[in-house]
Amino acid sequence: MADNIWKTAITKIEPNKVVVRGYRIDELMGRISFGEMVYLVLKGELPTPEVGKLIDAVLVSSVDHGVTPPSALAARTVASGGAPLTTSIAAGIMTINQHHGGAIEGCMKVLNELVAHKQQEGLDALTAARDKMAEFRAKKIRVPGYGHRVHTDDPRTRRLFALAEELGVAGEYVEMAHALRQAMMESLGRDLPMNVDGGIAAVLCELGFPPELGNGFFAISRTVGLTAQVYEETTRERPMRRIEPSAYEYDGPPEQSLGSED
Amino acid sequence: MADNIWKTAITKIEPNKVVVRGYRIDELMGRISFGEMVYLVLKGELPTPEVGKLIDAVLVSSVDHGVTPPSALAARTVASGGAPLTTSIAAGIMTINQHHGGAIEGCMKVLNELVAHKQQEGLDALTAARDKMAEFRAKKIRVPGYGHRVHTDDPRTRRLFALAEELGVAGEYVEMAHALRQAMMESLGRDLPMNVDGGIAAVLCELGFPPELGNGFFAISRTVGLTAQVYEETTRERPMRRIEPSAYEYDGPPEQSLGSED
Amino acid sequence: MADNIWKTAITKIEPNKVVVRGYRIDELMGRISFGEMVYLVLKGELPTPEVGKLIDAVLVSSVDHGVTPPSALAARTVASGGAPLTTSIAAGIMTINQHHGGAIEGCMKVLNELVAHKQQEGLDALTAARDKMAEFRAKKIRVPGYGHRVHTDDPRTRRLFALAEELGVAGEYVEMAHALRQAMMESLGRDLPMNVDGGIAAVLCELGFPPELGNGFFAISRTVGLTAQVYEETTRERPMRRIEPSAYEYDGPPEQSLGSED
Amino acid sequence: MADNIWKTAITKIEPNKVVVRGYRIDELMGRISFGEMVYLVLKGELPTPEVGKLIDAVLVSSVDHGVTPPSALAARTVASGGAPLTTSIAAGIMTINQHHGGAIEGCMKVLNELVAHKQQEGLDALTAARDKMAEFRAKKIRVPGYGHRVHTDDPRTRRLFALAEELGVAGEYVEMAHALRQAMMESLGRDLPMNVDGGIAAVLCELGFPPELGNGFFAISRTVGLTAQVYEETTRERPMRRIEPSAYEYDGPPEQSLGSED
Repeated sequence: MADNIWKTAITKIEPNKVVVRGYRIDELMGRISFGEMVYLVLKGELPTPEVGKLIDAVLVSSVDHGVTPPSALAARTVASGGAPLTTSIAAGIMTINQHHGGAIEGCMKVLNELVAHKQQEGLDALTAARDKMAEFRAKKIRVPGYGHRVHTDDPRTRRLFALAEELGVAGEYVEMAHALRQAMMESLGRDLPMNVDGGIAAVLCELGFPPELGNGFFAISRTVGLTAQVYEETTRERPMRRIEPSAYEYDGPPEQSLGSED
Repeated sequence: MADNIWKTAITKIEPNKVVVRGYRIDELMGRISFGEMVYLVLKGELPTPEVGKLIDAVLVSSVDHGVTPPSALAARTVASGGAPLTTSIAAGIMTINQHHGGAIEGCMKVLNELVAHKQQEGLDALTAARDKMAEFRAKKIRVPGYGHRVHTDDPRTRRLFALAEELGVAGEYVEMAHALRQAMMESLGRDLPMNVDGGIAAVLCELGFPPELGNGFFAISRTVGLTAQVYEETTRERPMRRIEPSAYEYDGPPEQSLGSED
Repeated sequence: MADNIWKTAITKIEPNKVVVRGYRIDELMGRISFGEMVYLVLKGELPTPEVGKLIDAVLVSSVDHGVTPPSALAARTVASGGAPLTTSIAAGIMTINQHHGGAIEGCMKVLNELVAHKQQEGLDALTAARDKMAEFRAKKIRVPGYGHRVHTDDPRTRRLFALAEELGVAGEYVEMAHALRQAMMESLGRDLPMNVDGGIAAVLCELGFPPELGNGFFAISRTVGLTAQVYEETTRERPMRRIEPSAYEYDGPPEQSLGSED
Repeated sequence: MADNIWKTAITKIEPNKVVVRGYRIDELMGRISFGEMVYLVLKGELPTPEVGKLIDAVLVSSVDHGVTPPSALAARTVASGGAPLTTSIAAGIMTINQHHGGAIEGCMKVLNELVAHKQQEGLDALTAARDKMAEFRAKKIRVPGYGHRVHTDDPRTRRLFALAEELGVAGEYVEMAHALRQAMMESLGRDLPMNVDGGIAAVLCELGFPPELGNGFFAISRTVGLTAQVYEETTRERPMRRIEPSAYEYDGPPEQSLGSED
């Protein structure tokens, strides 16, 4: 039996005690934000306040993108047949893969490759990016994380990079993300700004997360929007309706400002 | 065509603009925690700082409960066959239903029913709870949210109620939750302390959420732990292993304290 | 430990032996059709040749209904994000519930209730159907299994009833299905022909299946079409396309006849 | 709009008409077995009676393998939380991937590669198999479809090959499957008999199916067993039990023979 014992390093359960990555959950409650908890669970250690704030921002950035992404449509379609809330949310999460959210993982791999090339060859970021961009073009590899079907200048990406600078997290991966944009512009002849997946990729690389967790961060964030999408579908729409992804209108609250920050 | 137009009140998408419940996401990033964002998306308005802190605590409380809950086992089993991270997480979420996490929704319905009875009849909380408890016993209805298979005095519940008091959120639902425990003890002859699902139920009732979102809050929180469970399964274990739910050991970091709060 | 042993009556596995419901699979292979195997697995005994033929027909009837049912759309949407074949099929199956395929279970429950009423009160089928129809109308209960959003006279239902008669399986449930149509016409003032779900419901009642397996039969049959839908999506379409459920055309083989049965 | 029209070649729906791959479903019902229908839907043409019989046998062979495969455990675990039948079945299907059932696809790719090598180089089967086996060993590639964790001589595989011969379907892929076993024995020094996935792979190659449909055939077949597993879980077991995969006993019908085939 002994050698069949398998191991887990996530959570220790004892009667009247739940200890996650070494910390008692009841002690964490009220002390850290949900975003900081995500960092603790996935990284195995508590974030600094600055990193915690950035992770909260990463997770805030991707909660929802309206009714047209495949995740929202799959979740609503499953709900429309009569499935429970959690089954419907699950269907939405199943759409998150290479072509939906997957650019985070893809871009993290590219940034890791470029920074490794830079370090091994003792190059500056732009030279390393130009080298690799030539290689990608020759192999007809499309770089994930740049360009968007709707946004030409994604405000979420802009804000994420600003926060990363402000909070002292921006380092060689963020530098490389900008260098790669420059190298792409030179190579392709047009400017493809980073999308939010690319921005998240750069931040998660700075924080030392493996690319394989990219879809995990997106799933954690998007589960929030999917919960709202499914609840709206079941409370506002009739079952088994034909869900036309283009024939919708927004009728929520008008745009308002948060006001100045202090 | 016009009458086929369907409506959504969650997110407005325009080129270079993503507006959730009336607020631009890029403005929210760095300003609110991920927990506060969950409240905004599901409630449609920003929380006060106190409510935001409580929601973060609710979401922190349920991120993971080790390898033995059905959600962790289903997620690991699906991962073991070779499915991607998100498919495996989705399988875990699909286990969240009446018997796993469902006590939140069940207890919210009971608390709503008891508070309505109290208000309609002009009773005090304990009398209303005793009335209903007699009714439940006669109908052999088991009240969800009390008792736990592992914990006799769940520290997460204790902490959640303390935070609700401290943050000024505790009101007649929290009062009723305690009254019901008293009425159950009188009726059943033994004390069943509230479990964490019951504690969350009381808090979500105070905040005006519908019971149908109970499983949604649990799914949002548990997706974090499921991501870690699946990542651990795929990085530490061989594929297609037989996953014995009792034959495991914790080998993570030893317990440590957060230190004093200020 | 002993009292923790749980039981299964489906399949016995020994080295070099797989025995399903008492029969060795290798002995069954080549001797019975896939439909007969479905009956064996779900009923626990082999069907007569007539019943086997009818079960094959039931399962043939529901394999696919084009690209617009929620099951096909959910499966294609999940595939479009990049998920594997089986994850995408699974999403399709998750849509099968109360409002999609669920009419089989719903109609089986109604037929069981009506036949029980007939037997208990010693009535003829039409009188029993009229009694219950009056009750349903008073309670505003919609009877599942009658009417269809596309077909006014579903050829699959017609064929299923003809086969049930021909193969000697039609009995009091089929009789009751017809009586209920008559009672509905009298009560509602319009004729709602049985749809294929209703036809399957009557047949499964005759064969003694519990209503709770209704969605199971539909899932087994529809998995075939979902496999084809997902394969077509991944081989003919580009990833992350917007799937408009109304903007499609059929470009498959022209209609042809099987020829006379002789 | 015109260029947004997408195409499907599977099913044509018109009022009172459902035409699958060119044949009216109502005409097919009662004329072909469920296995023959699977062939029609996935291949786009009707099988000969011999091929139809073989496909029925393929689908009969994999309906269930007891309670221990990941598919059965995932389905039961999800059911145990309270999910509906179809959600639970879906979780089982999601486990079917590279390491569970995936050997069909993997072995089909290997057989295709070997037969192509044989044809291109004008070799006999055994020489081609030896060439490739040397290559696989050098690259440390494990050949899927040979060996089994329980069965040393899988009776289902034996029966499938016998039927393929008997029905005149065995050709160069079946020949290659045997040649590869011989080449593996010479290379590895031990005999790894083909498992049922390998047998199915050889048959599906003979019939011209693409490897990418391998998991589809397995999913279609296993959905039957999963339906029975979930139904048994919900009718025989209490919710939220701890499902120990090793602590079970078979208590179904004793083994019996089908009798002679005459």
